[in-house]
Amino acid sequence: MTSLEQAHSPIISMHPLYSQLKEQIRSSILDGTYAPNTQMPSESEMMRAFNVSRSTVRLALRCLQSEGLIFKVPGKGSFVSRPKATQELISLQGFGEAMITNGHETFSTLLGYSERVDNKLASSKLRIGCSDIMEIRRLRYLDRVPISVDITYVPSSIGRRLILEDLATEDIFVIVENKYAIKLGHAEVQLEAVLSDDALSSLLKIEEGSPILRMERLTYSADGSPIDYEHLYYRGDMLKYKTGLKRN
Amino acid sequence: MTSLEQAHSPIISMHPLYSQLKEQIRSSILDGTYAPNTQMPSESEMMRAFNVSRSTVRLALRCLQSEGLIFKVPGKGSFVSRPKATQELISLQGFGEAMITNGHETFSTLLGYSERVDNKLASSKLRIGCSDIMEIRRLRYLDRVPISVDITYVPSSIGRRLILEDLATEDIFVIVENKYAIKLGHAEVQLEAVLSDDALSSLLKIEEGSPILRMERLTYSADGSPIDYEHLYYRGDMLKYKTGLKRN
Repeated sequence: MTSLEQAHSPIISMHPLYSQLKEQIRSSILDGTYAPNTQMPSESEMMRAFNVSRSTVRLALRCLQSEGLIFKVPGKGSFVSRPKATQELISLQGFGEAMITNGHETFSTLLGYSERVDNKLASSKLRIGCSDIMEIRRLRYLDRVPISVDITYVPSSIGRRLILEDLATEDIFVIVENKYAIKLGHAEVQLEAVLSDDALSSLLKIEEGSPILRMERLTYSADGSPIDYEHLYYRGDMLKYKTGLKRN
Repeated sequence: MTSLEQAHSPIISMHPLYSQLKEQIRSSILDGTYAPNTQMPSESEMMRAFNVSRSTVRLALRCLQSEGLIFKVPGKGSFVSRPKATQELISLQGFGEAMITNGHETFSTLLGYSERVDNKLASSKLRIGCSDIMEIRRLRYLDRVPISVDITYVPSSIGRRLILEDLATEDIFVIVENKYAIKLGHAEVQLEAVLSDDALSSLLKIEEGSPILRMERLTYSADGSPIDYEHLYYRGDMLKYKTGLKRN
């Protein structure tokens, strides 16, 4: 009996064989048996090793690909993805601040900005009229790979200064605190899973319909005024969030 | 000039027209102008109202659909989705406990269970051998719609009792605390965006490749032993997480 068959309980099982194979390979990726950036065994090798059909191997690989654990190179086969970067949802930090602590390199490009943005949602969140809002669009890189598209809405008084700053290497949070002496207080954060549309896909160099971890964040200054409202679209195959929760 | 054109900055703009239209409609959905479960205006009506082409309207609607804000009924048109349910990432709660507080109805079905699960990851998280692990698979419903597939790994000593309990209406957390007198302590939580594979899709009644908010949660008892390791797959169009963060 293979180890896969041992896992297959005779009592009740909703797990098709490919799903068990997927879990098996998943474990081997997560425990480092299959190392990041190395090539996976070929389909034929896996068929022999696990004693399953080609279609079972293909289904399992497709699932692992959709989870972002492996990626395919046409004509070459499947490769193991690098581990996702992890951002802690513990204190309020900009992406750059958070990632540099973890030994990553970050960088942004300014995609563009607009004044007098007709966005009712941003207007109600920031509690100012649309004519006083500036929208700043950035593409962020992690270790030289595009990881997120950040749409930031700020009062124009702040926005007009921000676009003159070095947004390539400095977080907006850090600029606002250190240069403008506006102390940050707290933020309300929402997290969702969505699919990339074609605009996001072409910026992030991913296929349309790829998984996106979308964060909506409204940041208040220490005196309680909303000053920064953001829509952040992270590549699902590159980032995960981590937090700790206590039982009440 | 339409309001869309006003939003279009003459200085720099990466925003194609459909993206501006999308933001406009998005705001109208989020502020209740387009109410949940009502039909959206027809493509022709939107073309006239916003002075844009049919392809622009279609692109905008496709994006809104991929975000889960609208859904299509073949032959009838587009409808506004219900707001996503929100779970707070503040204290450690089971999904049932969290949702009942918000006035929702929850329910689960037991899909199956397996003993002696060959899962190295679960084994290392729970710090026990595979032969002592039970896997319990449940499908959870929110307001009578399937919302998540929950794969729970527990020590077999707990699992064998759990499968005899009323898992349809009671959270595992509540059973473990109230009936087994094991006080829960804290949990380590990870959140990712992935795509649904065909097994998830058929259980959750969604298309393959739909967005899934995946939670991995390792829960410890109050005395510090890991006792419950879970993989939770939530429909991205039905749930979002919310939390608050403070600046250090």
